[in-house]
Amino acid sequence: MKYYENHAEDVNIAYIGGGSRGWAWGLMSDLASQDILTGTVRLYDIDKEAANANVIIGNKAKDAEGAKSSWKYISCDSLKEALTGADFVVISILPGTFDEMASDVHEPEKYGIYQSVGDTAGPGGLVRALRTIPMYKPIAEAIRDFSPNAWVINYTNPMSLCVTALYHYFPKIKAFGCCHEVFSTQKLLSTALEELRGIKDAKRSDICVNVQGINHFTWLSSGYYRNIDLVGVYREFVEKYYKNGFEGMNEKDHWMNSTFACAHRVKFDLFKRYGCIAAAGDRHLAEFMPGKMYLADPDTVKSWKFGLTTVDWRKNDLKERLAKSKRLVSGEEEFKLRQTGEEGVNMMQALAGYKTLVSNVNIPNIGQCPDLPMGAVTETNAVFRHDTVTPVCAGKMTNEIHAMVSRHIHNHRTIMHASSNNDADAAFTAFINDPLVTCSYADAKKLFKAMLMNTAKYLPEELISGI
Amino acid sequence: MKYYENHAEDVNIAYIGGGSRGWAWGLMSDLASQDILTGTVRLYDIDKEAANANVIIGNKAKDAEGAKSSWKYISCDSLKEALTGADFVVISILPGTFDEMASDVHEPEKYGIYQSVGDTAGPGGLVRALRTIPMYKPIAEAIRDFSPNAWVINYTNPMSLCVTALYHYFPKIKAFGCCHEVFSTQKLLSTALEELRGIKDAKRSDICVNVQGINHFTWLSSGYYRNIDLVGVYREFVEKYYKNGFEGMNEKDHWMNSTFACAHRVKFDLFKRYGCIAAAGDRHLAEFMPGKMYLADPDTVKSWKFGLTTVDWRKNDLKERLAKSKRLVSGEEEFKLRQTGEEGVNMMQALAGYKTLVSNVNIPNIGQCPDLPMGAVTETNAVFRHDTVTPVCAGKMTNEIHAMVSRHIHNHRTIMHASSNNDADAAFTAFINDPLVTCSYADAKKLFKAMLMNTAKYLPEELISGI
Amino acid sequence: MKYYENHAEDVNIAYIGGGSRGWAWGLMSDLASQDILTGTVRLYDIDKEAANANVIIGNKAKDAEGAKSSWKYISCDSLKEALTGADFVVISILPGTFDEMASDVHEPEKYGIYQSVGDTAGPGGLVRALRTIPMYKPIAEAIRDFSPNAWVINYTNPMSLCVTALYHYFPKIKAFGCCHEVFSTQKLLSTALEELRGIKDAKRSDICVNVQGINHFTWLSSGYYRNIDLVGVYREFVEKYYKNGFEGMNEKDHWMNSTFACAHRVKFDLFKRYGCIAAAGDRHLAEFMPGKMYLADPDTVKSWKFGLTTVDWRKNDLKERLAKSKRLVSGEEEFKLRQTGEEGVNMMQALAGYKTLVSNVNIPNIGQCPDLPMGAVTETNAVFRHDTVTPVCAGKMTNEIHAMVSRHIHNHRTIMHASSNNDADAAFTAFINDPLVTCSYADAKKLFKAMLMNTAKYLPEELISGI
Amino acid sequence: MKYYENHAEDVNIAYIGGGSRGWAWGLMSDLASQDILTGTVRLYDIDKEAANANVIIGNKAKDAEGAKSSWKYISCDSLKEALTGADFVVISILPGTFDEMASDVHEPEKYGIYQSVGDTAGPGGLVRALRTIPMYKPIAEAIRDFSPNAWVINYTNPMSLCVTALYHYFPKIKAFGCCHEVFSTQKLLSTALEELRGIKDAKRSDICVNVQGINHFTWLSSGYYRNIDLVGVYREFVEKYYKNGFEGMNEKDHWMNSTFACAHRVKFDLFKRYGCIAAAGDRHLAEFMPGKMYLADPDTVKSWKFGLTTVDWRKNDLKERLAKSKRLVSGEEEFKLRQTGEEGVNMMQALAGYKTLVSNVNIPNIGQCPDLPMGAVTETNAVFRHDTVTPVCAGKMTNEIHAMVSRHIHNHRTIMHASSNNDADAAFTAFINDPLVTCSYADAKKLFKAMLMNTAKYLPEELISGI
Repeated sequence: MKYYENHAEDVNIAYIGGGSRGWAWGLMSDLASQDILTGTVRLYDIDKEAANANVIIGNKAKDAEGAKSSWKYISCDSLKEALTGADFVVISILPGTFDEMASDVHEPEKYGIYQSVGDTAGPGGLVRALRTIPMYKPIAEAIRDFSPNAWVINYTNPMSLCVTALYHYFPKIKAFGCCHEVFSTQKLLSTALEELRGIKDAKRSDICVNVQGINHFTWLSSGYYRNIDLVGVYREFVEKYYKNGFEGMNEKDHWMNSTFACAHRVKFDLFKRYGCIAAAGDRHLAEFMPGKMYLADPDTVKSWKFGLTTVDWRKNDLKERLAKSKRLVSGEEEFKLRQTGEEGVNMMQALAGYKTLVSNVNIPNIGQCPDLPMGAVTETNAVFRHDTVTPVCAGKMTNEIHAMVSRHIHNHRTIMHASSNNDADAAFTAFINDPLVTCSYADAKKLFKAMLMNTAKYLPEELISGI
Repeated sequence: MKYYENHAEDVNIAYIGGGSRGWAWGLMSDLASQDILTGTVRLYDIDKEAANANVIIGNKAKDAEGAKSSWKYISCDSLKEALTGADFVVISILPGTFDEMASDVHEPEKYGIYQSVGDTAGPGGLVRALRTIPMYKPIAEAIRDFSPNAWVINYTNPMSLCVTALYHYFPKIKAFGCCHEVFSTQKLLSTALEELRGIKDAKRSDICVNVQGINHFTWLSSGYYRNIDLVGVYREFVEKYYKNGFEGMNEKDHWMNSTFACAHRVKFDLFKRYGCIAAAGDRHLAEFMPGKMYLADPDTVKSWKFGLTTVDWRKNDLKERLAKSKRLVSGEEEFKLRQTGEEGVNMMQALAGYKTLVSNVNIPNIGQCPDLPMGAVTETNAVFRHDTVTPVCAGKMTNEIHAMVSRHIHNHRTIMHASSNNDADAAFTAFINDPLVTCSYADAKKLFKAMLMNTAKYLPEELISGI
Repeated sequence: MKYYENHAEDVNIAYIGGGSRGWAWGLMSDLASQDILTGTVRLYDIDKEAANANVIIGNKAKDAEGAKSSWKYISCDSLKEALTGADFVVISILPGTFDEMASDVHEPEKYGIYQSVGDTAGPGGLVRALRTIPMYKPIAEAIRDFSPNAWVINYTNPMSLCVTALYHYFPKIKAFGCCHEVFSTQKLLSTALEELRGIKDAKRSDICVNVQGINHFTWLSSGYYRNIDLVGVYREFVEKYYKNGFEGMNEKDHWMNSTFACAHRVKFDLFKRYGCIAAAGDRHLAEFMPGKMYLADPDTVKSWKFGLTTVDWRKNDLKERLAKSKRLVSGEEEFKLRQTGEEGVNMMQALAGYKTLVSNVNIPNIGQCPDLPMGAVTETNAVFRHDTVTPVCAGKMTNEIHAMVSRHIHNHRTIMHASSNNDADAAFTAFINDPLVTCSYADAKKLFKAMLMNTAKYLPEELISGI
Repeated sequence: MKYYENHAEDVNIAYIGGGSRGWAWGLMSDLASQDILTGTVRLYDIDKEAANANVIIGNKAKDAEGAKSSWKYISCDSLKEALTGADFVVISILPGTFDEMASDVHEPEKYGIYQSVGDTAGPGGLVRALRTIPMYKPIAEAIRDFSPNAWVINYTNPMSLCVTALYHYFPKIKAFGCCHEVFSTQKLLSTALEELRGIKDAKRSDICVNVQGINHFTWLSSGYYRNIDLVGVYREFVEKYYKNGFEGMNEKDHWMNSTFACAHRVKFDLFKRYGCIAAAGDRHLAEFMPGKMYLADPDTVKSWKFGLTTVDWRKNDLKERLAKSKRLVSGEEEFKLRQTGEEGVNMMQALAGYKTLVSNVNIPNIGQCPDLPMGAVTETNAVFRHDTVTPVCAGKMTNEIHAMVSRHIHNHRTIMHASSNNDADAAFTAFINDPLVTCSYADAKKLFKAMLMNTAKYLPEELISGI
């Protein structure tokens, strides 16, 4: 990277994964839309064809309407090639295929365990972690060998364990995980601010909140817009919409029309119970709570007005994206810049020293959550500036939220230990302790075995032999 | 107290409560059976008649067969009278009557919540705490005023919160809580040692275990008898008896014949899940776990081979004890010394400087459980010597047990705060966070109100008005 | 305060103290130089005349060259009058007079104890704290009663104990302490960057450093300008100038010409010993170290090339400022805006929601210094945004620096306890533990008594009677 | 080891070192004087001749007057031979020779740094640690390989770092360090009890004290004999003897007649300053305090009435012991049992399950000192029972003592790191931070180099090359 007064050139970004297209196109869009950084993006995907397609699309971005800078896209044959010389590394992979994910999400249903996402917590999230961590080992080691000073941004789930694995296998890595779930809650607060206080156009980034917890089970303990206490505003909002949920302002957002949308009923219920604002989509939040609470069965889920994202839906969605990719490559469809709302590129600008940014991030605990174990990956705000990411002190959680969060953090630690030591017994200990695993000891054992066998292709032999 | 080389005279014990007879008679028996301490016991009970009956019975103890020392029993009209000059204070009260306890235990059944004891955790335990803490306030203050240097031994449940309340209202109190549940597990280990290793007559006090956790949800992380690893022995024992349970060695102990006995199936299941030895009766242990696990409904309870102790049984049991009291007072029945197996009197001897004793005790955390909050009342071993009780370092718990225990500790803190501030909302937060409270937010609110109204006679007005 | 899109009106600032003029004129200058905030400053000083003079001067600021906004200055008769309605409170008082300060600084010289400032650590700092804390009690209580939601900025020394006292007497206060000593070190780094790397015009605020420790004994564990490791740059700089010191770039800054300047030899020596950048003037740093190290006697001080600031110098300096005040009031001299380099007004803008600012600040530890006691006032960076000040995680210190800093923090706690309980014995314990107090126990006792008697006019009777 | 009801046979003890005779003879005496354990002692010393002499002497012990049990002594050629099959391992070596120790103690005198012992803290202690740790590496590894389940008792100084090294190189070791310095303070308290309260014959083990800190810088925060507060008794004692010291009850103990005795003036001064009872000989205590306090120069030492133990004295003392050894071997002198007052053999009995013992011990911190770093070797009481050593919770130290102790603990960590990484720079950081090192940075560097070169024969090449 070459630094000039108001911009930098020759910035090198290594992008690992991206075959699924969605995230990659967003990044292309965000890079083209700004003019502080310019340089090269090196794409590496185990699906080389996918990377090649993205090269073609990415190189078109500079010509899209609104483009302010030109980036060069290259496809690489190895991690080494992609990483050497990188200033930034972006990781966004799909661990395994949707077939493995189908087992993660749907196998537990045989034992009455329903999951709305299945990629973070719950039996699905834990097994996905066991599959993903061994993939992260060579990535972390390659970063150690070829770009030890690069900033590494992770987008893959399960977020907490992916970031944990990066630090486990390369302790000096400069990595963090980005997630937009908190942003949605900031937008909800902005909506409440308009509806209840008549304040229009409060920008999301001006909804100043204190973030605590872990990814997808993140809590806002306080919030301010100027001198307005946003928790107070939210309390009114919850009272108004508790019973029927808040169903969004336009059709597209309606929870019945969108797999990802929700009516926030889970979020509102959690607020009434715990007094803090849960800051993720209801589909994610529900998976961290005791199994019979929001996910007892499909009818219960329906009553709480959120959806179970099936893997069939995902397969179909991917198909559509691949079709779109073809059209973009062929030129049949034009690549258009869009506002992703993601902060990855803003963070790069800040790390290069061109702005100061405060945003939520997943990073090992060095005291930002003083009542959680040091070293555990937690989600809080952090300050991004000249080559540094410094978490801010998020303070202690309430007793009740602490108890819920730390249970999952303990499970993360156990899974990381289990994976790095190929200790299937330890992994099962975490599995049986997940609040969604409500079946008997014997059934849990059967389910665990079945799920591991379904994903055996991606597991180390030593782990499988210990089941 | 007057110290001589091998014994002390003029020891003063204040006994608060005892109207229910059981504990009081045990203490009389233990005091008469030893000859290191001798002196006076001052009885204070809100039921003066009960105290008077105990005076008559107590004064007979010195003449019982096997008695080695003579103690004088006096009945007092006030806490002040009982406490002034006391070297030791024993607290063993029934908070409210069995009518209130009937609500604690059975009201939640209307919402599908079953409790096997209902005096420690669960909705019953929490409401019982709200009733008990206000009774402990004047006791703690009287100790502060009339016997600030006395050692205070609590036997009342909910143990953790009773001890918490004593320290809350008189921070310099020298108090601890005694419970025999760990002893039973030591005996079970002794039985296993004999059955699997052929070692006979290992004394309970030589079953050397590391105790961690909170009262009635106590865990043994390690254990040794000489150089034998007792956890290994227990593992074999669990494998042997996991399926059908261990049903004791004689009829009287059989779980179907005794309200308090159990076949240890819950204990064995917990060992398989968590790798540590849960050290309390199954009836207690089950109440700390997620509601649908062991206490889903009476059939589930039956399948785990333990019993739900009904309050009707307790009422009947009390009736029998009162009848016996009459017979003892009248002389129709003779007072006999029996081995209680309790350690209260041993502890007094040690505190007076005549022996060194290591035993489990409930006392605020000063580091004995380094991963639990400082100040929280925890149960670990402690050393009793010359005027000191020093907890030993029990070390960190496993991740999973820590998560379960700390959830309850958080609830204790919330209840203590709620009670001392008459904050019904805070109390409800703890209530809804108890793992047995599996009903909806709305139902939980209804249940909470009903239970509080059922015990309203014993609650401060300010608390009730906040419901 | 009334919020508009890009500015706020009717901002109310209460200014307590200011009679010594310096700080007050700086604030007037900074307020007039910006146009985001505008409103009223209410001045309260025990020297009403001084406040009145400042009213006249302040009201002229809007007419000075370069003024962008108009502020109204009012003088108040009571704390209540000044504080009611305040959005911000600035505290900048002189505790006692220079006569008391003369004792703080010079009395210890009778026992061979030399102090270069005598207002923070050392015997002088501790006695000054004992005098100041009782003055802060009514201020904290008035803030609690009249402006509990105002942000309070402290400039008075001893900084750590002034902020500690504010939180002690009003735990919910929103207070922090500002100090510019770190700024100077940032400027020194900027100078080194130019001299050794040829980078010109790196702004102080772009010298991005990690701040740890306590006021006037603050350490930079890392620093970046873009991707340049500033610790590495500093290491070279130290090697170059270790022996003779770095004597500044112009005459005025030369340590022999200025009471406040230094040749940074102490700072460089500390870097060689401890590997981190001490970030305060040498005069302050020397006072935190063992007495015989840099302050053994005037010759030693001279060899380290910094100065002992005498109170005579201060008295003379004040005289000049009072003369200038007269000229400004009379119009004989014109009030000119100057760049103070202080960040107080920037912080106000950020707290009002108009920018995000990261700067160093003194505030109770909520985890920013995870190896220092929670609640202790520490100096680290913090994020200033919409009505919030959030410290960033400064991380653990090195073993050696931690040992030195925690010794002083322990002394702060002891002094706060001693002052609030009028416990002269406890105060003496802190006194004798200060590293500058190298005399015998008996001499320390004599010195302590003498110093307290010299400032007795400002001490509570109960404290004096305990000496 | 074979367990019987009241005794054990075939106990295997490996004794590493012992060539200096003193400790070895004491152990022989203690083993012969009891009848609970019996078995074999395997001696291993790099001086095989010394070991052989001890074999002859040891085998005579069973015939000494008062002997109750018979132990077999064998000399071994390797650690492997000595350790294989061991139940207990005793380590008592002299690291290097008295020539190296002469440098440790006397080289610093060239820079005005006096040390009274020079084997624990101060420049001498730190350099001795650098020489000793590499010797402990093969010992720890041999224990790991040949007797991983044995209990390891360390007597070598520097105690804290020897125990630290054992755990560093074999983390699962069951090791602890024994020191009798606290015993002497218990005896002093017993003396005070008799003199001031007329209580005769209070046994040392009944002087029940709470021990906190690190070896040779240990503090008693409280103490009881029955219900008597020993801190109160000690306060009176200090007042009485502060000025002139307490010079013992018989000639032999008088500080002028004995290198190891003292008049306790340092101990009394520390009590006046810090309010807790420092529990080690004055010679040791003085070395942990700032250099100019008690060890400024020989006259200062004399005024505090303790002695500087010269290495010449030690050399002479050894000569006398070697002469005695010859006489014992030849039969010219008879081996007599003596009361050593050490607790090593008691501890073995307790660990075998034949008693419960509470005594002070050096062991890694698992919470016994909650304000010191976890894992640091601290000295507190511990419970010895069936195959377990469990430290008791010693609680927090006072602010001032914490600050002093943690400084040394930080230095230990730095030295352990420096030694295991052969990092001479890190070692120098600890060196320059020791409170006795009061010279300038340049002089400290010279002294450090000289001391390391003087002991170079025992240092790894990699460490020396980094100087």
